[in-house]
Amino acid sequence: MSDSTEKLTDLSALGEFGLIDALTKDLHTIHPATIVGVGDDAAVIQPETGKVMLVSKDLLIEGIHFDMVYMPLKHLGYKAAVVNISDIAAMNGTPKQMLVGLGVSSKYSAEAIQEIYVGIKKACEVYQVDLIGGDTTSSPAGLFLSLTIIGEADPEKVVYRKGASPNDLLCVSGDLGAAYMGLLLLEREKSVFLADPNMQPDLTDKEYLLERQLKPEARMNILKILDDAGVKPTSMIDISDGLASEAMHLCKASGTGCTIYEDKIPIDQLTFDTAKEFNIVPSVAALNGGEDYELLFTIKQSDFEKVKELEGISIIGYMTDPDDGENLVTNDNQSIPLQAQGWDALKKRNMTTRKG
Amino acid sequence: MSDSTEKLTDLSALGEFGLIDALTKDLHTIHPATIVGVGDDAAVIQPETGKVMLVSKDLLIEGIHFDMVYMPLKHLGYKAAVVNISDIAAMNGTPKQMLVGLGVSSKYSAEAIQEIYVGIKKACEVYQVDLIGGDTTSSPAGLFLSLTIIGEADPEKVVYRKGASPNDLLCVSGDLGAAYMGLLLLEREKSVFLADPNMQPDLTDKEYLLERQLKPEARMNILKILDDAGVKPTSMIDISDGLASEAMHLCKASGTGCTIYEDKIPIDQLTFDTAKEFNIVPSVAALNGGEDYELLFTIKQSDFEKVKELEGISIIGYMTDPDDGENLVTNDNQSIPLQAQGWDALKKRNMTTRKG
Repeated sequence: MSDSTEKLTDLSALGEFGLIDALTKDLHTIHPATIVGVGDDAAVIQPETGKVMLVSKDLLIEGIHFDMVYMPLKHLGYKAAVVNISDIAAMNGTPKQMLVGLGVSSKYSAEAIQEIYVGIKKACEVYQVDLIGGDTTSSPAGLFLSLTIIGEADPEKVVYRKGASPNDLLCVSGDLGAAYMGLLLLEREKSVFLADPNMQPDLTDKEYLLERQLKPEARMNILKILDDAGVKPTSMIDISDGLASEAMHLCKASGTGCTIYEDKIPIDQLTFDTAKEFNIVPSVAALNGGEDYELLFTIKQSDFEKVKELEGISIIGYMTDPDDGENLVTNDNQSIPLQAQGWDALKKRNMTTRKG
Repeated sequence: MSDSTEKLTDLSALGEFGLIDALTKDLHTIHPATIVGVGDDAAVIQPETGKVMLVSKDLLIEGIHFDMVYMPLKHLGYKAAVVNISDIAAMNGTPKQMLVGLGVSSKYSAEAIQEIYVGIKKACEVYQVDLIGGDTTSSPAGLFLSLTIIGEADPEKVVYRKGASPNDLLCVSGDLGAAYMGLLLLEREKSVFLADPNMQPDLTDKEYLLERQLKPEARMNILKILDDAGVKPTSMIDISDGLASEAMHLCKASGTGCTIYEDKIPIDQLTFDTAKEFNIVPSVAALNGGEDYELLFTIKQSDFEKVKELEGISIIGYMTDPDDGENLVTNDNQSIPLQAQGWDALKKRNMTTRKG
């Protein structure tokens, strides 16, 4: 990240206000709606008449959501921002403004903190988001990131989790399970490194999986593809916790059941091969791995013709009566109940966060 | 907090979604603008036409901003919310919606977390704020709170830090230094308790100081008093870090200097007496103690007549040319430079947070 011969700056030497100045000095905003960004008690936004605002919050804690051993700080910042932006995508909205809360222990240098901001600012640039404020403080141990994203949408275009009806088709963007396989690769390399620090990681040809884990993207482009095709999803959620958990959220909110076909779940060949290498059933990585940040959504049956040929979208099942439950039809044609992970799985895993 | 004979619930037993359900099940929203609160990827707000939105964020970390030994969880929730709401007051706005991020370690029971929410919800009730969402996750150690407040204001009524001019009068609401003396009392009782757990705290007659520390309020009523008197402050900030630091923020943002008269700083008699007991100059508690959450603001000289008799507002000095610097005229009529605390003071003190 920084040249090792370069002297790093103690946070205490720079001072808190000095750090804030350094982090925010080159900020400029692009949206006319952003009247005042960083530098006052609150940011000021002039909402566009007729639009609704979307607001979401993510809390990311070192040792729970990320591991500093293999998460470069710049990627951490980028990913944290993307995860937050993805929540706006899941509402069919456009991200506009972001606030960043940062708690850091004295083990971090000012340069390290600036690296995190480089990543956050990069994501803001890519997704056209104004960084409008936040809060910086010290922490007794570790790093804490808290991001708030504000988005905008036409009221009639907002898509909720609750809008699905029985017989709606269940669709997913991109492919699933790659981020989880990337995590397993990184965990394995960490074990190897801890056992023998002279060992060099061998991650040749695994770049796609690592990128999915370390540098995910929010699927704004899928929203555009659907809009261009004249399709408004009936319900939608982003996949942070794994397909199974998110499908169950849609069902719970909509009061439906669902049927997912294992053989329809989009899995990249590299994900498939690497899962086999780890003795994991590839669809389990997709169903329970999480962090793919793809969009899971339902469409009316009548939109089938419009969606079936769209690139990057797979129809993986359909919604059912609630009494039919939430089921997976396996490759050998058995119907089994979908199962989602619980609290414990979260404890030492990945950047997944739950919404309250 | 909970009856000691009552069995407490492990967070892992309740599960994360169970906890979220328990925390949010009785939420209802009061503002028509709050279209959707908790339960989707993002909350949805319909801003009132012609109004601007104000957004601010606070990050509160156990061991930095609060000490569980003497901060009851309910008060922690209430104070965290008030501190956040106070940022909207400092912009001359009205708080409307709040999002809560909560990171908790397994040492906390579900009941403990619910106590925090009881405090947050109480503050939301008092200040008429809708709790519209958030994020709940585990933490490796300690408790982390991240709050985002959304407020509303008429565009022409928003007051920034940057609006002061030389000769504007500098005013403060309420009295200062009490929250800091409350903190010192609690710290002293903690030491006594740690030395001999059989000792009972003797805090008789100190209730006002403890309340100022443990249960501060945002000064929405001062905004109304000023508005009723036809006075719009030219600049404003809330006092989280102490009078000196906040006055310097106004000066920096406005490009002015300031002169503050020590003998004009409003200090309650109990604060005064307790400071003496601790061998602290009372005005130092006011200047550098912080956490009073009073409003520091400037008015035009021409508004002097309107403000001078208003209850709960003291005129403590005036703004000057920037070349004159930021000065304190002491009780013995010496002019000395104002000094604010830095990063180190923050490290183990109070709920103060800095805005980026």
